[in-house]
Amino acid sequence: MMTLTVDLGARSYPIYIGSGLLGQAGLLDRHLRGRDALVVTNTTVGPLYEARLRGMISQGRVASVMLPDGEAHKNLVTVETVLDALVEHRLARDGVVLALGGGVVGDIAGFAAAIYQRGIDFIQVPTTLLAQVDSSVGGKTGVNHPGGKNLIGAFHQPLCVLSDSATLDTLPDRELSAGLAEVVKSGLIADAAFFDWIDARSADLVGRDADALHHVIRRACEVKAEVVAADEREHGRRALLNLGHTFGHAIELCAGYGEWLHGEAVAAGIAMAARFSQRLGWLPARDAERIARVLAALRLPLGPPAVSAGELLAAMAMDKKVLAGQLRLVLLPSIGKARVTTEFPLQELEEFLREEVTTGL
Amino acid sequence: MMTLTVDLGARSYPIYIGSGLLGQAGLLDRHLRGRDALVVTNTTVGPLYEARLRGMISQGRVASVMLPDGEAHKNLVTVETVLDALVEHRLARDGVVLALGGGVVGDIAGFAAAIYQRGIDFIQVPTTLLAQVDSSVGGKTGVNHPGGKNLIGAFHQPLCVLSDSATLDTLPDRELSAGLAEVVKSGLIADAAFFDWIDARSADLVGRDADALHHVIRRACEVKAEVVAADEREHGRRALLNLGHTFGHAIELCAGYGEWLHGEAVAAGIAMAARFSQRLGWLPARDAERIARVLAALRLPLGPPAVSAGELLAAMAMDKKVLAGQLRLVLLPSIGKARVTTEFPLQELEEFLREEVTTGL
Repeated sequence: MMTLTVDLGARSYPIYIGSGLLGQAGLLDRHLRGRDALVVTNTTVGPLYEARLRGMISQGRVASVMLPDGEAHKNLVTVETVLDALVEHRLARDGVVLALGGGVVGDIAGFAAAIYQRGIDFIQVPTTLLAQVDSSVGGKTGVNHPGGKNLIGAFHQPLCVLSDSATLDTLPDRELSAGLAEVVKSGLIADAAFFDWIDARSADLVGRDADALHHVIRRACEVKAEVVAADEREHGRRALLNLGHTFGHAIELCAGYGEWLHGEAVAAGIAMAARFSQRLGWLPARDAERIARVLAALRLPLGPPAVSAGELLAAMAMDKKVLAGQLRLVLLPSIGKARVTTEFPLQELEEFLREEVTTGL
Repeated sequence: MMTLTVDLGARSYPIYIGSGLLGQAGLLDRHLRGRDALVVTNTTVGPLYEARLRGMISQGRVASVMLPDGEAHKNLVTVETVLDALVEHRLARDGVVLALGGGVVGDIAGFAAAIYQRGIDFIQVPTTLLAQVDSSVGGKTGVNHPGGKNLIGAFHQPLCVLSDSATLDTLPDRELSAGLAEVVKSGLIADAAFFDWIDARSADLVGRDADALHHVIRRACEVKAEVVAADEREHGRRALLNLGHTFGHAIELCAGYGEWLHGEAVAAGIAMAARFSQRLGWLPARDAERIARVLAALRLPLGPPAVSAGELLAAMAMDKKVLAGQLRLVLLPSIGKARVTTEFPLQELEEFLREEVTTGL
């Protein structure tokens, strides 16, 4: 087991990464200290890992609530299901929520913990690659609104993150690839050498080589922890983590929540951000092509679904990264370096989107 | 106009108190700085003051959303109404919510601002005495759950509080009295001389003497601002502000949300806390009687409604001030001094509640 730390002063917390952590005695007890807990999981993950998680808790009452699986349920109705369970089981202010599952479970459970009794503790136990490398770290919690992705939420940091890489054994290929999209993002925004490494090892990654997966979980968490520590509330640098997300959120919204996996939409969004960077003269064509090649090797989509450019643009305009009416994008001056910008003609973006939906990548 | 400051470091903010502030040019503009705004108000207050509030805003888009009036609507459904309006009017991360109304409007609008896009700015414009002396100050926002009062919420401090005492001219007598309950609380927990002043001027207060009302708004805000500055997140001292609230919340829950005004339930809760303090030998009988006399002079109820002691106790056990299963109460060692305690036999509380519901004060 290795331990990373997200350095946020009084709210600092450890990320435990290793194979077989679920079931390891003492790991959760040191954080729970006998307090009552509610396990939040879903109908897919619960049957596989819930018993093992509960077996790690040696003191205090433990209850569970089972959510339906999928992004389509990442809404306020499902948050209420968790709140009802917290009330039903009479969790007090010192109670702890345990989020066992992928990014959707973590976002919902973390948000419910953030607003129950104005905030109780929670622990992330991510069981998908996407959650292990990205969504479980950094304290962003929340749900979707029919008008846009993650429009409702709170910043709420967990007590700890427990990433058992052995849970990836049961992860479908499509979800593995979706997680790798966020790994590619880490390399592109902060570490060109890591992107080279991913490029070189893409076959091992989709082939589920344990060492290769362990390496990307660690390195992606390091990048994220460092960015979050520098800018917890996204006043500046943290926005770089949104590379591919403004395009991606628009794709998710236009396709209908749950049709595309979040990571798939992000992959398409990254490829689009690279091509738009190229179009604006920021990025050499060979780099944009290389990024697309790596994403393709990881079995990820490279462009938008069959919707109109107008729909995409309208969805992008509702993304919450629109600040004071200006559409902001994360673009790439080079591999390993990203920049937030509003400096592009809107007309250029419109033309770009029209070409993208016509090409139908 | 006078200005108090709630001293919370980077989140410090002013409370403006005065007669005729609504409509005063420049007062809001300095906080809005041209950003888009959503006015949240209700069907009672909106027709009276919304036009005047909007007239104060010289730049930026302004939209409105009208909520149904009353505590019965202080729930997640109404929060969604506000969130829908924020999305519909495309407020960006720098948008501002203006809460125009009593405590219910402020709690709902503040909570919606806290969770829209993970937190946008908001401004409190309280139009009831209760909101002006208590709920608009301190950043507690949230809504009720069928299982208990304020079980869902967030800490979210406003940009400023604008208390126009002239709005009290349109406040019904019953609501004026309800606000005075929280004023009495301020004196009891922190300032015996202020309680003496309230006792001496109770007839002027219910008679709506402008100077007397201005004095209690100022002094109650000072007490609250000082307590909140010392303990924003209620890890200690802030809990004293809950004097009368554990009994009071149980009364509200048992009576059905909206039957009792919050301040009325708090008044009954204060009288009960005083009598229970007396029963435990903390407070002289003459002080408990004097507290009841002052509350009666302010036309406030002094005890629980016609419910069973068991119902009351069950409702108290769900109050979120129950920490790790132990019922905590704010009790009075003397007038002007309060203490949080778990040190009382539960059986004593049960007997006390049985007597209270039998006496039927």
